[in-house]
Amino acid sequence: MDISGDEARRKAALYPRQGGGWKKGIAIFDFILRLCAIGASLAAGTTMGTTDQTLPFFTQFFQFQASYDDLPSFTFFVIANAAAGAYLILSLPFSIVCVIQPHSTAPRLLLLIFDAVMMAIMTAAASSAAAIVYLAHNGNTNANWLAICQQFNDFCQRVSGAVVASFAAALILLFIVVLSAFALKRT
Amino acid sequence: MDISGDEARRKAALYPRQGGGWKKGIAIFDFILRLCAIGASLAAGTTMGTTDQTLPFFTQFFQFQASYDDLPSFTFFVIANAAAGAYLILSLPFSIVCVIQPHSTAPRLLLLIFDAVMMAIMTAAASSAAAIVYLAHNGNTNANWLAICQQFNDFCQRVSGAVVASFAAALILLFIVVLSAFALKRT
Repeated sequence: MDISGDEARRKAALYPRQGGGWKKGIAIFDFILRLCAIGASLAAGTTMGTTDQTLPFFTQFFQFQASYDDLPSFTFFVIANAAAGAYLILSLPFSIVCVIQPHSTAPRLLLLIFDAVMMAIMTAAASSAAAIVYLAHNGNTNANWLAICQQFNDFCQRVSGAVVASFAAALILLFIVVLSAFALKRT
Repeated sequence: MDISGDEARRKAALYPRQGGGWKKGIAIFDFILRLCAIGASLAAGTTMGTTDQTLPFFTQFFQFQASYDDLPSFTFFVIANAAAGAYLILSLPFSIVCVIQPHSTAPRLLLLIFDAVMMAIMTAAASSAAAIVYLAHNGNTNANWLAICQQFNDFCQRVSGAVVASFAAALILLFIVVLSAFALKRT
């Protein structure tokens, strides 16, 4: 019985280390992807937040000026991207823990859950902004909404760039979630 | 050594069954949630797809009529909800496999990946439609887009309901992803 106990302990010590290599690789890749996502989300947020265009002419009623806080979707976009950037920075220590201990499931599960939530928020922000940007570019004759990008050309181009960056960040987060799921899998 | 081999085999047979109860519970809950998500996404898609309102007056230029294919976001919404409904129905057999074999990780991992992708698509569809619905309700004075819900009141109400149902389906999918992550965790 002593032998069997030894055997079981030896197996228990041996088995978790199986596949430790690729788990560590996934954890390092996860860390790098997180850095990319931080860059993309903060770039998207700041691009949208700092975009501001005032047209050089005005009527007696108002001066034509466009900034992100004119449209609720864009305000949500800035907040969501800032929140995602902050969350991703705070998640880096947990990601490092996963690199050091590739077999600990608790931090990885925690990261997966919050990553999934943050991915949903980022996707919501990016796609609602995309819907508005599309409208700004093309307008809609049925609803009698005119395209405003002929006037606010510079504004529209910067905003479109921000939306693309935000979608990139959301895609990276989706990839991180899938990677985490693979890493959670029993070896 | 024979004893230790027996012992190891006994442990291997015993350990996977540890926590089998809550894994089976999660799998059954997952199946029920999938049924709810099918209902919500198909309800959202059909509500949006069948909504059609024609105003009882018309000008010499055109008759005022609103349906989902007037707005690209709503068309995307219908397609995404139909796709999500179809995917979720196709995922039911895999979910049943997870109920029968709570410890098999392959179908669960497969489901988690596709659930995460579908969750992103649903969130994108719901939030882009929500951005347009918000605009239809409130308009935007800065962009000179007028609210159309005073005229198309019935249309707007049905569309809002569809958006809420779609968000519900996306939330359920998020919950399914988190549950799957828990079930993938090593016991």
